[in-house]
Amino acid sequence: MKQSQLFSKTRKDAPKDEVSLNAQLLIKAGFIDKLSAGIYTFLPLGLRVMKKIENIIRDEMNKIDGQEVLMPALIPKDLWVQTNRWETFDALFKLTGGDEKEYGLGATHEEVISPLMKKFIFSYKELPTYIYQFQTKFRNELRAKSGLMRGREFLMKDLYSFHTSEEDLNDYYEKQKQAYFNIFSRCGLGDITHITYASGGAFSKYSHEFQTITESGEDIIYICPKCKVAVNKEIIDEQSVCPECGEKELEKKKAVEVGNIFQLKTKFSDPFDFKYMDERGEKKPIIMGCYGIGLGRVMGTVAEIFNDKKGLIWPESVAPFKVHLLVLGDKEEVRGSADKLYCDLREKGIEVLYDDRGESAGEKFADSDLIGIPYRVVVSDKTLDENKFELKQRKSNESKLITSEELFNILNTKH
Amino acid sequence: MKQSQLFSKTRKDAPKDEVSLNAQLLIKAGFIDKLSAGIYTFLPLGLRVMKKIENIIRDEMNKIDGQEVLMPALIPKDLWVQTNRWETFDALFKLTGGDEKEYGLGATHEEVISPLMKKFIFSYKELPTYIYQFQTKFRNELRAKSGLMRGREFLMKDLYSFHTSEEDLNDYYEKQKQAYFNIFSRCGLGDITHITYASGGAFSKYSHEFQTITESGEDIIYICPKCKVAVNKEIIDEQSVCPECGEKELEKKKAVEVGNIFQLKTKFSDPFDFKYMDERGEKKPIIMGCYGIGLGRVMGTVAEIFNDKKGLIWPESVAPFKVHLLVLGDKEEVRGSADKLYCDLREKGIEVLYDDRGESAGEKFADSDLIGIPYRVVVSDKTLDENKFELKQRKSNESKLITSEELFNILNTKH
Repeated sequence: MKQSQLFSKTRKDAPKDEVSLNAQLLIKAGFIDKLSAGIYTFLPLGLRVMKKIENIIRDEMNKIDGQEVLMPALIPKDLWVQTNRWETFDALFKLTGGDEKEYGLGATHEEVISPLMKKFIFSYKELPTYIYQFQTKFRNELRAKSGLMRGREFLMKDLYSFHTSEEDLNDYYEKQKQAYFNIFSRCGLGDITHITYASGGAFSKYSHEFQTITESGEDIIYICPKCKVAVNKEIIDEQSVCPECGEKELEKKKAVEVGNIFQLKTKFSDPFDFKYMDERGEKKPIIMGCYGIGLGRVMGTVAEIFNDKKGLIWPESVAPFKVHLLVLGDKEEVRGSADKLYCDLREKGIEVLYDDRGESAGEKFADSDLIGIPYRVVVSDKTLDENKFELKQRKSNESKLITSEELFNILNTKH
Repeated sequence: MKQSQLFSKTRKDAPKDEVSLNAQLLIKAGFIDKLSAGIYTFLPLGLRVMKKIENIIRDEMNKIDGQEVLMPALIPKDLWVQTNRWETFDALFKLTGGDEKEYGLGATHEEVISPLMKKFIFSYKELPTYIYQFQTKFRNELRAKSGLMRGREFLMKDLYSFHTSEEDLNDYYEKQKQAYFNIFSRCGLGDITHITYASGGAFSKYSHEFQTITESGEDIIYICPKCKVAVNKEIIDEQSVCPECGEKELEKKKAVEVGNIFQLKTKFSDPFDFKYMDERGEKKPIIMGCYGIGLGRVMGTVAEIFNDKKGLIWPESVAPFKVHLLVLGDKEEVRGSADKLYCDLREKGIEVLYDDRGESAGEKFADSDLIGIPYRVVVSDKTLDENKFELKQRKSNESKLITSEELFNILNTKH
């Protein structure tokens, strides 16, 4: 894409009421715009990052047999009443339609998926099955000061699994754990994301969160130095040692919850009388699990962690483009060389943002550092004289002059 | 995809309160599920159709320089008040957050895009520019009995264009008209979709609707037999002849509005004092256009029009799969041949739903007709004896036995 065409530009300042680092960076770099507390527009660069994250998650969900659907956000009140959450779910946005029908805006979708699946699942032969969606959630958060890390409206992947037994749920739960590790690893957060034992609610001793270490995190976790699992502060009194190896010296850290998985068991099948027929013709309750990731929160966490004083430093897997091509000056032959490289890169399927604007070299370099695309390629008088291009990785301080062949070798092989 | 794995199945009946043909067919064939009036879940087959439609629209919007963003649905009250629509927009769902902040759920996005663009557009040099999104809209429709053709929650493509002059808006408006014709043509609705003059509101004499002829349509249009343009009944008193050629004998038909385009001019730039600086340094109002298509409505219209007594008949461009592969009987060599064909089709990138279930031939044929995938390929004792496959198009009554080579020739070349 040509940067001269991109309507969204970098900005000097973020709104004064925007205190979170992730949102400040993402607003200044032109990835998002703040509409209201906890409510953002994704601009072209930000939407590209979101789609990269979405595709990584979809790939991992499909690998473990997820089937994709799309449920609505307008959920009739009676469904929330059946699970007793109409009055108890604090974060539910409630509204009334013209026909006096009341709705809760989907903050989570157990109330939709359970009655839906009841229409299709009757026998043990139809189990297990795994259904997911990418869908916009709404939560009436009183505190919404953490940028993309705590939104009132946010895109979430939620998967629901349906089983004949707790053993089968346990097996799939382990597969989801691995898929979640794969997702966070592919998004660049693998090393600093810890599976964390947390409160399980009424039906399980524990749930599991995926917590990424960051100073701006709203959670506190205690990490086992041996097995890297962690315990959320909320249960540290009852679980003060590592739940996997018994280690007593746990390390306290601030972290943000980037995903969570729950064994719901029969919590949301019972209220809907959602049962299956087993091999002997007996009716048994369906056993459920649920598995969530907020895409914006992942994006916000990546932004919060990968940056320096100059701006963002995207991991390649979720970067809006792989290459930021800068042309300096307005000499015809320099422009021509840059235009040709832009075409060549696109022809090879390499995603490139081409800064073809008439701005100064200083502004282009500053914008490029702020936006944080992994590879910066400069075409100028100097590079053209040597018949080379200048390549610099955003995460490195060194640039080098290389030939076209060397450039394509690096861009085609490095991932 | 293997049909034995697909959780969503065909159903004997649609809900009794579902009176529309499109929703009855789509529910019975397992494409959608009804949660409440005007509110549906898209099941795997239905979501595949929606993504096909989305990709066609995205392709056409990108061709005319659209830039994709994603705006939120929670729109603060003060923005609606600024355009005087808080009280006047009947279909607005209103809600109040925990901090007593009021929102209108996005029924359209002029109130978000105008103040957003004001942050980025200052000069004539930055115009024109075209911004679009695929985003879920909410409308508090009192009547919601038309299935996907009138939803309370629905996915919409909305593009907003920004110009320095009405001439420039007119030029781009013509490009959008052509893009809309391309979209409906690619979705199989080209021949029966008419550009229709309709009420323009306060700022333009006309707006333009794209109306598709169908008996179930809620609108009435008058079509010119010569130039194929139409006039909406709402303005037929003031515009009783063809607005393009003056023809007096117009043909009255029922139709559904599948898209509409408006010249907003300064209606939504004025309230936000959204201006640009011209070549001479003078401030001028921004001229706007908007261009909408409801994706579910397109899907519902296609379903409403392309069907027979046995079920749906999808145009190939928006079909959930290109091929429905049916294996009959459970003989090992028949199964093996079908399994191999399934792999071969997937290897060639041909989308295939493989009915590998243990159902009877009769049930498989009935389901295949109901689901309506364009090409049906049968593998059975009979076909294996002749070392051939049986191919039938859903829209045709004739089947033929052909070799593997002939089959791949047909599937690779026909579109």
